Amino acid sequence: MDLNSDLGEGFGVWKLGDDAALLGVVTSANVACGFHAGDPRTMRSVCELAASHGVAIGAQVSYRDLAGFGRRFIDIDPVELADDVLYQIGALSAFASAAGVRVAYVKPHGALYNAVVHHAEQAAAVVAGVKAWGDIPVLGLPGSAFLAAAAEAGLRTVGEAFADRGYTPSGTLVSRREPGALLTDTTAVVERAVRLASDRQIVAVDGTVIDASSVESLCLHGDTPGAVQHAQAVRAALEAAGVTLAAF
Amino acid sequence: MDLNSDLGEGFGVWKLGDDAALLGVVTSANVACGFHAGDPRTMRSVCELAASHGVAIGAQVSYRDLAGFGRRFIDIDPVELADDVLYQIGALSAFASAAGVRVAYVKPHGALYNAVVHHAEQAAAVVAGVKAWGDIPVLGLPGSAFLAAAAEAGLRTVGEAFADRGYTPSGTLVSRREPGALLTDTTAVVERAVRLASDRQIVAVDGTVIDASSVESLCLHGDTPGAVQHAQAVRAALEAAGVTLAAF
Amino acid sequence: MDLNSDLGEGFGVWKLGDDAALLGVVTSANVACGFHAGDPRTMRSVCELAASHGVAIGAQVSYRDLAGFGRRFIDIDPVELADDVLYQIGALSAFASAAGVRVAYVKPHGALYNAVVHHAEQAAAVVAGVKAWGDIPVLGLPGSAFLAAAAEAGLRTVGEAFADRGYTPSGTLVSRREPGALLTDTTAVVERAVRLASDRQIVAVDGTVIDASSVESLCLHGDTPGAVQHAQAVRAALEAAGVTLAAF
Amino acid sequence: MDLNSDLGEGFGVWKLGDDAALLGVVTSANVACGFHAGDPRTMRSVCELAASHGVAIGAQVSYRDLAGFGRRFIDIDPVELADDVLYQIGALSAFASAAGVRVAYVKPHGALYNAVVHHAEQAAAVVAGVKAWGDIPVLGLPGSAFLAAAAEAGLRTVGEAFADRGYTPSGTLVSRREPGALLTDTTAVVERAVRLASDRQIVAVDGTVIDASSVESLCLHGDTPGAVQHAQAVRAALEAAGVTLAAF
Repeated sequence: MDLNSDLGEGFGVWKLGDDAALLGVVTSANVACGFHAGDPRTMRSVCELAASHGVAIGAQVSYRDLAGFGRRFIDIDPVELADDVLYQIGALSAFASAAGVRVAYVKPHGALYNAVVHHAEQAAAVVAGVKAWGDIPVLGLPGSAFLAAAAEAGLRTVGEAFADRGYTPSGTLVSRREPGALLTDTTAVVERAVRLASDRQIVAVDGTVIDASSVESLCLHGDTPGAVQHAQAVRAALEAAGVTLAAF
Repeated sequence: MDLNSDLGEGFGVWKLGDDAALLGVVTSANVACGFHAGDPRTMRSVCELAASHGVAIGAQVSYRDLAGFGRRFIDIDPVELADDVLYQIGALSAFASAAGVRVAYVKPHGALYNAVVHHAEQAAAVVAGVKAWGDIPVLGLPGSAFLAAAAEAGLRTVGEAFADRGYTPSGTLVSRREPGALLTDTTAVVERAVRLASDRQIVAVDGTVIDASSVESLCLHGDTPGAVQHAQAVRAALEAAGVTLAAF
Repeated sequence: MDLNSDLGEGFGVWKLGDDAALLGVVTSANVACGFHAGDPRTMRSVCELAASHGVAIGAQVSYRDLAGFGRRFIDIDPVELADDVLYQIGALSAFASAAGVRVAYVKPHGALYNAVVHHAEQAAAVVAGVKAWGDIPVLGLPGSAFLAAAAEAGLRTVGEAFADRGYTPSGTLVSRREPGALLTDTTAVVERAVRLASDRQIVAVDGTVIDASSVESLCLHGDTPGAVQHAQAVRAALEAAGVTLAAF
Repeated sequence: MDLNSDLGEGFGVWKLGDDAALLGVVTSANVACGFHAGDPRTMRSVCELAASHGVAIGAQVSYRDLAGFGRRFIDIDPVELADDVLYQIGALSAFASAAGVRVAYVKPHGALYNAVVHHAEQAAAVVAGVKAWGDIPVLGLPGSAFLAAAAEAGLRTVGEAFADRGYTPSGTLVSRREPGALLTDTTAVVERAVRLASDRQIVAVDGTVIDASSVESLCLHGDTPGAVQHAQAVRAALEAAGVTLAAF
């Protein structure tokens, strides 16, 4: 099982999350590329830290939306979206290369992540942006239009689940605007993680058990209360359960 | 002699200059990378056009200043400047690669170009950003702190002169805020170009003859009145004078 | 009949449309407020010119989207949208006041204009932003959720029609991504204007005659080919037809 | 004595400082207006809180520099700077008005604050922007070109001192890039404040005693470690010393 987390999500003077601590926990770092967060100084710093920890670097691509942190759907022209994705991968790649590694995968952020679950044109656009870069894996929601389009384009797809997000019975994420969006209790987060890694199952907000057999990565958030404690507890519990943790 | 020009300097709905026409004239394209101009869609389009014309692609790196078009000096921390430069090169490189070519060189834009003539820290920072990318040539003003720092760092340096900008007797550019900053007469622009290519000399605003023996590239602006006509006239005159035109 | 046009839609070095010429034609200027276009220098200049021509100044409020020129729907939280609207009105008001006049009305721009035709939450948000400023008129599409919400909130509503945009049979605008979005023939634009002013009727792309009895203002675009010629021809034709032109 | 502090310096998802706590301490709030920090939602919230606490609202105007938090000098054209200042005052004023109060004063932020200590053209530009808004007081460094230009223009000027910043012997602030820039010890901060309020004196980093007879306001930072504790300790000590605290 891979553990991924969003990192480098500050901008200039503003910080978000505890990147250094999370880099001691995860096996893959989704690094913000400047469109929703992530100034160049931060990108370099996170890439250097990730490389020194042996953590894989992924491009966390987003709509261009600093003011909204990439959490607002934007009805962007798919051609422009593909180019926005390619721009972000390229920018991050410069810092990964300077740190002696490569961008290992791409994961959409926030509203774009949610949009490409169903929005076929935007899903295809993100895939087109990735393909214009090269054949690197993409990380996303199992069953999403995005992973389907990526697979069809010949990209390796990696399904992920969220340790600390609520799931609807149909397997999508509960909106952050609604109750139940976040699991804040450490025990619940850890149980989610272990059950997922051991049985490939997720329990939705209404108790429905969701099949998660295609999940290869577990996402740990870094911008929620207690994020680091959750992440450390999850890693410890998975290791205790004998789960091998490694980047995909 | 190389002919270079600033291209891709629109942003979104806004356009500047006639990229398609200039790509039929120059041998090197300084492509805006998003900090002073240059949205991803435009970057892709310019890179594709440049590649199809056999025109070399350079990263025209700038201060982060869309509102000021990169024409305002910013007293940025050199460490941040180096990272801003690396970010821009990386972003452009993605589009160059998608078009089947590579970023061939780096040239600072606007106020950054002027600053690194004398500003040793910022000159070193731009060089550091380029070195973090790799050993590619840099284009700049002969005698500048920038080219000196680049040479010391082991980078190939290419001196350039401006066909349509006024020069002070000391060989620097007349500020755009002052009279004489731009040569608008085609005959004057062409004479400048031919004398430069043939004799490696430039005549300053006060008549002083400046030695230009280190100049290997001639810059043709794309955002001034009559830019395309000037560029075409310069190319025609240089070809008529038997000058070989090619990227450095 | 009022004639309104979008003005001040450049940003920094980039220009769009011929503001000076249009200010000699229209009776109301929809001035960009910095979110989709409109840097402060331009805002001051347009306000001064409008005031000197006796043209009413309206706040053309937009999503925050310079890269997309405000033409992309953004699923922004309505509370934030109301504040974005209020911010833009306030900023423009400073320049209007400096020019000795007041912001006379508010008109949404681009994708926001289209969204509030049907999107009840965003329509209410724009109205809330306007109400937080004060009881000034709003300009919009007849029959839109926006004008309905504004009327309910006690604001004066002004319906407008477009001289140079294609209409669907149901009275909405044809998307700019589809054919028929723009009328480029001057005769067609002038006929649209005169029929509208005289008979309060609009002919849709399929020939359907739409009732336009609630229209008090005619919008002339400034960013389309031939915009100024269209505007001048419309004004001349309306004056020849005896229509009184004045801000509402 | 007035107590002022920089507030509303978050942007979108990013927060900085504890606005709610500081509003219980200060008598004047320097509210960020969107150029270095301060999204509209935050501006509204801070204005509402300030109004409910009876705290005066000032426009904390800045260079346009979100990435650098307004801490980088920008060699902007003074005409554009004046318009940038006016834009920011107008935007903030909309939120002040919506909260039932008015913008009471203007204070430059960060690098602009430092620049207008000596930079006559930018000092005049900020004054021109304020004057275009109206005759409201300005807050700045005693002896600065800014306060001199403001006084000459007929504006009320208010000198301020910093409780937690190091002073050079000549009375300017120690750069944040140098040691001694910040007083982090609460006792030192409180001593500074009481001596200032009682004797109108400040002790510089080298022990020099600086005359502060023109100081009417004391600035308490909100973005430094222990900011709120410092501010509360200062207020308590000043009240204990019998100093009357009120907006100027």
